[in-house]
Amino acid sequence: MSASTAFAPLRNDTFLRACWRQATDHTPVWLMRQAGRYLPEYVATRARAGSFMGLATNPELATEVTLQPLERYPLDAAILFSDILTVPDAMGLGLSFAAGEGPRFAHPLRDEAAVKALVAPDLNKLRYVFDAVTSIRRALNGRVPLIGFSGSPWTLACYMVEGAGSDDYRLVKSMLYSRPDLMHHILSVNAQAVAAYLNAQIEAGAQAVMIFDSWGGVLADGVFQRFSLAYTAQVLAQLKREHDGQKIPRIVFTKGGGIWLDDMGGLDCEVLGLDWTANLGDARRRVGGTKALQGNIDPNVLFAPPEAIRAEVASVLESFGVPHTDASQPGPTHIFNLGHGISQFTPPEHVAALVDAVHEHSRRLRA
Amino acid sequence: MSASTAFAPLRNDTFLRACWRQATDHTPVWLMRQAGRYLPEYVATRARAGSFMGLATNPELATEVTLQPLERYPLDAAILFSDILTVPDAMGLGLSFAAGEGPRFAHPLRDEAAVKALVAPDLNKLRYVFDAVTSIRRALNGRVPLIGFSGSPWTLACYMVEGAGSDDYRLVKSMLYSRPDLMHHILSVNAQAVAAYLNAQIEAGAQAVMIFDSWGGVLADGVFQRFSLAYTAQVLAQLKREHDGQKIPRIVFTKGGGIWLDDMGGLDCEVLGLDWTANLGDARRRVGGTKALQGNIDPNVLFAPPEAIRAEVASVLESFGVPHTDASQPGPTHIFNLGHGISQFTPPEHVAALVDAVHEHSRRLRA
Repeated sequence: MSASTAFAPLRNDTFLRACWRQATDHTPVWLMRQAGRYLPEYVATRARAGSFMGLATNPELATEVTLQPLERYPLDAAILFSDILTVPDAMGLGLSFAAGEGPRFAHPLRDEAAVKALVAPDLNKLRYVFDAVTSIRRALNGRVPLIGFSGSPWTLACYMVEGAGSDDYRLVKSMLYSRPDLMHHILSVNAQAVAAYLNAQIEAGAQAVMIFDSWGGVLADGVFQRFSLAYTAQVLAQLKREHDGQKIPRIVFTKGGGIWLDDMGGLDCEVLGLDWTANLGDARRRVGGTKALQGNIDPNVLFAPPEAIRAEVASVLESFGVPHTDASQPGPTHIFNLGHGISQFTPPEHVAALVDAVHEHSRRLRA
Repeated sequence: MSASTAFAPLRNDTFLRACWRQATDHTPVWLMRQAGRYLPEYVATRARAGSFMGLATNPELATEVTLQPLERYPLDAAILFSDILTVPDAMGLGLSFAAGEGPRFAHPLRDEAAVKALVAPDLNKLRYVFDAVTSIRRALNGRVPLIGFSGSPWTLACYMVEGAGSDDYRLVKSMLYSRPDLMHHILSVNAQAVAAYLNAQIEAGAQAVMIFDSWGGVLADGVFQRFSLAYTAQVLAQLKREHDGQKIPRIVFTKGGGIWLDDMGGLDCEVLGLDWTANLGDARRRVGGTKALQGNIDPNVLFAPPEAIRAEVASVLESFGVPHTDASQPGPTHIFNLGHGISQFTPPEHVAALVDAVHEHSRRLRA
């Protein structure tokens, strides 16, 4: 008996149905970085763990924080608590999080020798992630589906070359324009690593997977297609389509990728994530015939009073339009989310107003 | 006799012709922030000035640095050396530049009283800018046209509320979503101030003006149109259309605005600036019938070797396509530029390769 056959049956499949463009009675909602610093209970657990990586590498604590937002809000999905930089860390780049400074690699890829030495990681080094997936799936006990995730090949490459966050991407773009051969080598290795990493998450119990192309939007037109989208497509082509008799939907989110929506529409995935610069009605007309859409409220809306939050939620739902309600066939569907991760400064009670507004107003739209 | 009637006749009008969608024998080129820290002679002048604002407020030194890149490269336009934050500084917000930290306001707009007290500045406080414009125009002596500029009402508001640069725009967006009435008040005052500021630059000798909406791209769809574009339109409506018998073209650049190109196409201006995420061929099809296009190479291309720079320049020129060559009527035209300001780390000899490649390859395309 595999670990996953022991999982409880799913009780709320609204999110998965929407991924497959099936009619639902409300618009499902979850929030990027929903388990995070804006929740005092998260801050308490992280303090016990000692550090961010102490938390991410401890399956028991990762399970605890993944479930925290579900205790507060009637969210329609859970997402693995982890970090996109676990993969390059397992490749030997030496990840650390200095207090208040964000991630940093001790051994960034800065020369040909370092790039040529790069290989996909031994998945045993990422065992803690797969253990967390199985542990969370058990703890969810069928309440909502669990989403696994990874950074995209390009987004991982940004951090691997820059060695930390960047505001101009000078080092990684210098390599891209000066030595495209080296950049393609990094991206090939990353695509292979990301596909294996996501497949292992699926085997461990993830019911959907999401690829975060957080930095695809910093690339030039033409360059994005060759250095980001093409490698995201390589990952998608290698992913397991089903596990334990369940089909696994695949979500791709490119921050700032709305300008390339027609290109994104050609990806072999089920859901496209959009940030707040995109118009959902326009996106529905262009790609809604084949893709579910996920997004896209500005997380800064959560700093407004609840009344204003409700109005903005209604505006986002209405920009998508009246959702598909024909149970006999697939059609355009919307999964409500932020257009980027939630801010650590968000008042938790404002999140409750947002989630309730999505459920209430989306039921009203269908009526 | 007004100051400007004494100006020498223009010898290179390629840039102005392209602004008016008239045929030219090559594609004109200038670079955002072309007078800047990547040039050792700029660093030397700034050291003499003592500080950035010491440089910006001294018309003689501002003239010196404005002309420096023209001594090195055969650029087709000059742009006033100044800063977009001179206007809020003149409103009393107290601008300073701490070493290595970027701009900061001593008195940001954080409450209703501060917002309600805001008024358009006395233009006498900006006399140093207009004096610099006249001084530069004289020093240019007809070599190339001089572009004046301002930040957009929204972009100025970002700095005025945040008090400094920001990576999440939390404070300004909190005000926008919580107190849209206060935000509209700031934007109205800014629109009035920016229009007066640009008109005074035109009277002082600017031969074209550009509105930098550097932060328009951080807004949500729908919000951008109401809080940025609408106020840029208010500015445009108030601008002088000609001075001293010369028509004054108006350029609008929204960083990250490519997704709203159809909205931008409706602006009453002559030129739209685009960043590198936009496809120039697509933009030409959509708005090239009424607007000249300016842009859009990624400034990070300048870190590649000259051979790669030439290839990327060719690629950008070819994405726009063969330019309009019919001298008898207006048609689609392209002004080559970066998609954002040049990096301080750029090797100056790489800029020479870029400028030469634009001139050579664009002549070849027309042949």
